[in-house]
Amino acid sequence: MTRPVTIALDAMGGDHGPSIVVPGAALALERRPDARFVMFGDEKLVLPLLDAHPKLKAVTTFHHTEVSVKMDDKPSQALRYGRYKSSMWRAIDATKTGEADVTISAGNTGALMAMSKFCLKSMPQVDRPAIACLWPTARGESIVLDVGATIGADARHLVDLAVMGAAMARVVFDLDRPTVGLLNVGVEEIKGVEAVKEAGRILREGNLPHLDYHGFVEGDDLGKGTVDVVVTEGFTGNIALKTAEGTARQIAGYLRAAMNRSLMAKIGYLFARGAFAALRDKMDPRKVNGGVFLGLEGIVIKSHGGTDAIGFASATELGYEMARENLMAKVREMVAASVRPEAAPQPAATVE
Amino acid sequence: MTRPVTIALDAMGGDHGPSIVVPGAALALERRPDARFVMFGDEKLVLPLLDAHPKLKAVTTFHHTEVSVKMDDKPSQALRYGRYKSSMWRAIDATKTGEADVTISAGNTGALMAMSKFCLKSMPQVDRPAIACLWPTARGESIVLDVGATIGADARHLVDLAVMGAAMARVVFDLDRPTVGLLNVGVEEIKGVEAVKEAGRILREGNLPHLDYHGFVEGDDLGKGTVDVVVTEGFTGNIALKTAEGTARQIAGYLRAAMNRSLMAKIGYLFARGAFAALRDKMDPRKVNGGVFLGLEGIVIKSHGGTDAIGFASATELGYEMARENLMAKVREMVAASVRPEAAPQPAATVE
Repeated sequence: MTRPVTIALDAMGGDHGPSIVVPGAALALERRPDARFVMFGDEKLVLPLLDAHPKLKAVTTFHHTEVSVKMDDKPSQALRYGRYKSSMWRAIDATKTGEADVTISAGNTGALMAMSKFCLKSMPQVDRPAIACLWPTARGESIVLDVGATIGADARHLVDLAVMGAAMARVVFDLDRPTVGLLNVGVEEIKGVEAVKEAGRILREGNLPHLDYHGFVEGDDLGKGTVDVVVTEGFTGNIALKTAEGTARQIAGYLRAAMNRSLMAKIGYLFARGAFAALRDKMDPRKVNGGVFLGLEGIVIKSHGGTDAIGFASATELGYEMARENLMAKVREMVAASVRPEAAPQPAATVE
Repeated sequence: MTRPVTIALDAMGGDHGPSIVVPGAALALERRPDARFVMFGDEKLVLPLLDAHPKLKAVTTFHHTEVSVKMDDKPSQALRYGRYKSSMWRAIDATKTGEADVTISAGNTGALMAMSKFCLKSMPQVDRPAIACLWPTARGESIVLDVGATIGADARHLVDLAVMGAAMARVVFDLDRPTVGLLNVGVEEIKGVEAVKEAGRILREGNLPHLDYHGFVEGDDLGKGTVDVVVTEGFTGNIALKTAEGTARQIAGYLRAAMNRSLMAKIGYLFARGAFAALRDKMDPRKVNGGVFLGLEGIVIKSHGGTDAIGFASATELGYEMARENLMAKVREMVAASVRPEAAPQPAATVE
């Protein structure tokens, strides 16, 4: 018999707070009946919602908090007034203390990352954390990281991203050796991507046990699903992610307009409405909701701030899966086994 | 009466060479009857095709060339064997000598940029060239640059991109003060985008006469068409462009699959086929074919290498329009009027 997975929830996070977090958790519980919850938030808002979901209430430990981090606070502000006492901090801290296995919040990304770094600390050997997301592709899904935790990357950080992304792919896709590509531009002999080239050399020569290095990939390989894991630094990754989301919305708008332009089109739409429903489902951004913070001593999942209960349930289930499959242990093991670019020339220290 | 526009064509460029360049030019001529052409290529391949298009032949000066740049040559290789004598070089040189007003090639991007830099030279005050493209948006089109000419950018280069992009927007969109945004990530207080922040400060305080600085934009603003001109450095811009192209192809694939999944869907498709044709037209990448090289002493347009005659005609017409509206003069004027980040503290030199 396996141990239940305990999920810490920041009930106050996101644009809609408890009104989506509580029903989202209830939905996730229906699909993951062995999940347990620790929830942090304002009792006046959360408890009536919990009363409306008795099955959820029965497996939830609730803690009242007075302070909620606002969506537009700067990370430094949020840390100043929210440390130790906000629902966000307490939810992260529950994973640190072991009360929970994973933390989920739909709150302010910058504040969530700042608090996660401060509370959980980085893993040894990993300098900087990353945010990984699941990217829907023509073949299924890939993992893309970093989508915005850290701006700029040297070769070592890119190799860390490759190793952590591969560990996540092993958990999510159940693969022994996921394929990994480094995002680059197509033009050869171009200057300025030395870090990417150097990371490619390390990955090619490193022969890492649980990772199959594919080489460089380009922007259009993301949608193709050319590799299981696409590695890039956070500035480019964030812009690529939002560009793809924007393009999908733009084309959905074109499609709506096309289906409304004539009576014939509207009749066609009625006949094909099952197909359109399937397409909408396929393109539903709520289905792949959840940025996974990697490189910290604990797993934190960031849900989209504007999502609804269905989207929050997806993020919660993603967190469940990461905890159930012991993502932390896999990341730790792979990071420890990976070649450190600067490890080789270092002389052994005599004392610690 | 206006002077005709003369367009230099590298007939050997692209995956399909003269077989798309000659009919593409013929198509462009139908829509731009005052265009004149100077064409460079292998006479054995080009002349029979010109014979098949007598109207085009009547307004074309043809020059035989022995050397063609291959699509997979490195820029340095192409320069070594193709300088002064390849169809690509000669087409660029025609714009330099004034025989033509603009050069179009579907050839190897890296080689075309290297030869353009070598042959045309940079404009005074502009250190590094850029590639600008037209980006279809929910509102119409925007200009996005740099999509891959130069990797990495300091604040000064980003301001140059803003100024050159705005000059192009004035020509293409016929606007007096195009809106300009700097592509950035949404997270505040994030480190590493100092160049973007500094460029924002300069643009905000610079009060440039022909440019309305909007502020930062994010990846999803590209598809929305939030601003007329989106500025980013070439690595991120190239990846954003290819990510959007890949996402569009991916969704087109989903749509095809959805319309084939049942008899009802197929019937619906038949009713709505006019609407689907309009949608395909809207998403047709050939309609917005053409990367404009900016910052050089002459205009060069890069067509997609794999395009067909319709796509090459779009690139040719884009070149026509840039030349007709005197893009070069507008870029020069705006660059000269722009505030140089490092201009202020420089003491006046006594001699040139």
